[in-house]
Amino acid sequence: MMRTRPLKVALLGCGVVGSEVARIMTTHADDLAARIGAPVELAGVAVRRPSKVREGIDPALVTTDATALVKRGDIDVVVEVIGGIEPARTLITTAFEHGASVVSANKALLAQDGEALHAAAAEHGRDLYYEAAVAGAIPLIRPLRESLAGDKVNRVLGIVNGTTNFILDKMDSTGAGYQEALDEATALGYAEADPTADVEGFDAAAKAAILAGIAFHTRVRLDDVYREGMTEVTAADFASAKEMGCTIKLLAICERAADGQSVTARVHPAMIPLSHPLASVRGAYNAVFVEADAAGQLMFYGPGAGGSPTASAVLGDLVAVCRNRLGGATGPGDSAYTQLPVSPMGDVVTRYHISLDVADKPGVLAQVATVFAEHGVSIDTVRQSGKDGEASLVVVTHRAADAALTGVVDALRQLDTVRGVASIMRVEGE
Amino acid sequence: MMRTRPLKVALLGCGVVGSEVARIMTTHADDLAARIGAPVELAGVAVRRPSKVREGIDPALVTTDATALVKRGDIDVVVEVIGGIEPARTLITTAFEHGASVVSANKALLAQDGEALHAAAAEHGRDLYYEAAVAGAIPLIRPLRESLAGDKVNRVLGIVNGTTNFILDKMDSTGAGYQEALDEATALGYAEADPTADVEGFDAAAKAAILAGIAFHTRVRLDDVYREGMTEVTAADFASAKEMGCTIKLLAICERAADGQSVTARVHPAMIPLSHPLASVRGAYNAVFVEADAAGQLMFYGPGAGGSPTASAVLGDLVAVCRNRLGGATGPGDSAYTQLPVSPMGDVVTRYHISLDVADKPGVLAQVATVFAEHGVSIDTVRQSGKDGEASLVVVTHRAADAALTGVVDALRQLDTVRGVASIMRVEGE
Repeated sequence: MMRTRPLKVALLGCGVVGSEVARIMTTHADDLAARIGAPVELAGVAVRRPSKVREGIDPALVTTDATALVKRGDIDVVVEVIGGIEPARTLITTAFEHGASVVSANKALLAQDGEALHAAAAEHGRDLYYEAAVAGAIPLIRPLRESLAGDKVNRVLGIVNGTTNFILDKMDSTGAGYQEALDEATALGYAEADPTADVEGFDAAAKAAILAGIAFHTRVRLDDVYREGMTEVTAADFASAKEMGCTIKLLAICERAADGQSVTARVHPAMIPLSHPLASVRGAYNAVFVEADAAGQLMFYGPGAGGSPTASAVLGDLVAVCRNRLGGATGPGDSAYTQLPVSPMGDVVTRYHISLDVADKPGVLAQVATVFAEHGVSIDTVRQSGKDGEASLVVVTHRAADAALTGVVDALRQLDTVRGVASIMRVEGE
Repeated sequence: MMRTRPLKVALLGCGVVGSEVARIMTTHADDLAARIGAPVELAGVAVRRPSKVREGIDPALVTTDATALVKRGDIDVVVEVIGGIEPARTLITTAFEHGASVVSANKALLAQDGEALHAAAAEHGRDLYYEAAVAGAIPLIRPLRESLAGDKVNRVLGIVNGTTNFILDKMDSTGAGYQEALDEATALGYAEADPTADVEGFDAAAKAAILAGIAFHTRVRLDDVYREGMTEVTAADFASAKEMGCTIKLLAICERAADGQSVTARVHPAMIPLSHPLASVRGAYNAVFVEADAAGQLMFYGPGAGGSPTASAVLGDLVAVCRNRLGGATGPGDSAYTQLPVSPMGDVVTRYHISLDVADKPGVLAQVATVFAEHGVSIDTVRQSGKDGEASLVVVTHRAADAALTGVVDALRQLDTVRGVASIMRVEGE
């Protein structure tokens, strides 16, 4: 039974993602209408440069006045694909105030202001959906929020940034250094001219905040996420990883503490065993591992970015939000009832791979081992190699608190026999 | 804002899955209430053997009269984990008639009678959810039905039966024959005493029917699914696969035809390249690859069976159905509007790996090649080896229609110089 009055959609932003959303809304209009139960109509497109020719979009729909568009009052759903904090935040809030539901792909905004936006949606009885904000086309928000709603998620471990995975995969497979791999990523369009948001882990940290909040039904802010970029990963680190049967990935890791009373969220490069499913995630692909009490280990894999994949996620949300609207209902909203606190990085328990440059003389290993013991960090393996009075020592620890490891490293730097700490890398996924 | 009157749940069946559903409903009652917005209460449990002690379940809730339970009139949601066609079908229909929504894990019933059950749900304005019917805990129905609702799915390719994957993985990794690997699967509890439903592909075919229907928004019945079991896969087949850089998996494959005007669904063993993500799915795990126009290639991976994983999927559906009920809405129902016909196996286009025992004399290859050419099947590679007057010929074709290949094989069997067709295996995932 098809309603004939169309649902009206306002599109904010018409770049790579927005133009693809508009294209699919037009070319797949009949399918969307059948799946929603009513036709959807593109009622307006807010852009910055109105003079740009946009194939397939009626120029009469194009406006530079996004605020007027979301205030029109006849808009059922606002699709926000502008990105960034402002004006996106004000436009979304205004959209709720004027009766629209919102589909957004804006990870930065959701990570920073998710609480306020969810509150605004709830206040006005509207939906806020944002599957596209994390890992592009990969269904992840909906499975965590709905499929696992009857389960207890303990861990989310994922590759959520395609640019850095492309660079690290290139370094791993060719032996290239960071700069060389970054240059190739830039040339191929996988990295932006200013790659900071990706390579320093800001993008992944925003996604980690969103995922942790949903997975643990609590509030995790961007500032709660520990973040280390991957610009200092070297070819030597990859060689060390290989010796351990590992590779290196930039991971977003969200964990519930063993006692269940707190959570942590972090982004940093880490060694993972080649046998782990995440190790074989190549190129710019994303993949996220989820561990839950009853479900066990699940993995979701796919393209994490790009116009079409992101548009697919936006349109899936658009269909859901339109259905909710027709049914006079809203989907599952914000869920932060557990109010679990977020612990600092020092409380994270994991394993470490540490490379030291040391003097090649008797007693060094004993000195180093004593430092670890004094800080309560148990050593799993040590490998020593040396020549010409210089030696290197590779120590892999058992699981220990990050704070204890920081103590170890500070103390090691004080030893005369330790010339330098060449690298410290966490070991995950075991 | 929490409603205090609880939602009442009737559980039909209290075996491996049902008892786990009941356990989690009790131990995680607070979480479920917070996520739903109202408490849920186990209002009755229908079993066959009431005398059996069921830990954590109030004996006063246990009944052998499932019909009376679903007819009570105060039940909000019926969870059906009995399995099989009857009495499950009648109980579900009766539940709808008496105002309940239904969560089911019953793949056989959904594959056979999905249309009628969906119609009954729609008639009474109730939900029918069944995430647990396909691939256990792996979110698959919801992503296909909701996350990809704005996209066009072209292909679903998956390992959806853990028993057969365990057996094939064992054969691959140890060189064991089928019987030996099956015996181990039985001993470890991965295979049932009568493994027919698994090894002959009936279980996977039911899942393929469900997945194809949802993916293509059409009606695919169990009888529409072409089915070949994996009991005739040999150690020699694995050796051949290895030579091609492949392994062998029992796959469920649902495809939209190139012209978009029909679909196919099939289950059979197939060679897939070791580089394909499905090749590394080990043991009893399941994984499903989905290819969509905009989203690209997605993969969903996890435990495909077992009490806890299946209970996780059931409970996710239970939360969704309860939320819908509180909101006075229903979720996305049956969607078969495309009415795409299901083509027979003969129309399926794929590649083939054929092993022939032939006479070791000049001209045999020419004869064989002529047969392929006469049927319009183009050869990719041929490998010949022989000794003592006997030879074997391995032919790998380019893509061709299954009907053409059948014609080739029939004709090859007529040749005096072909002593036998040792194996025919499709090659997928390239």
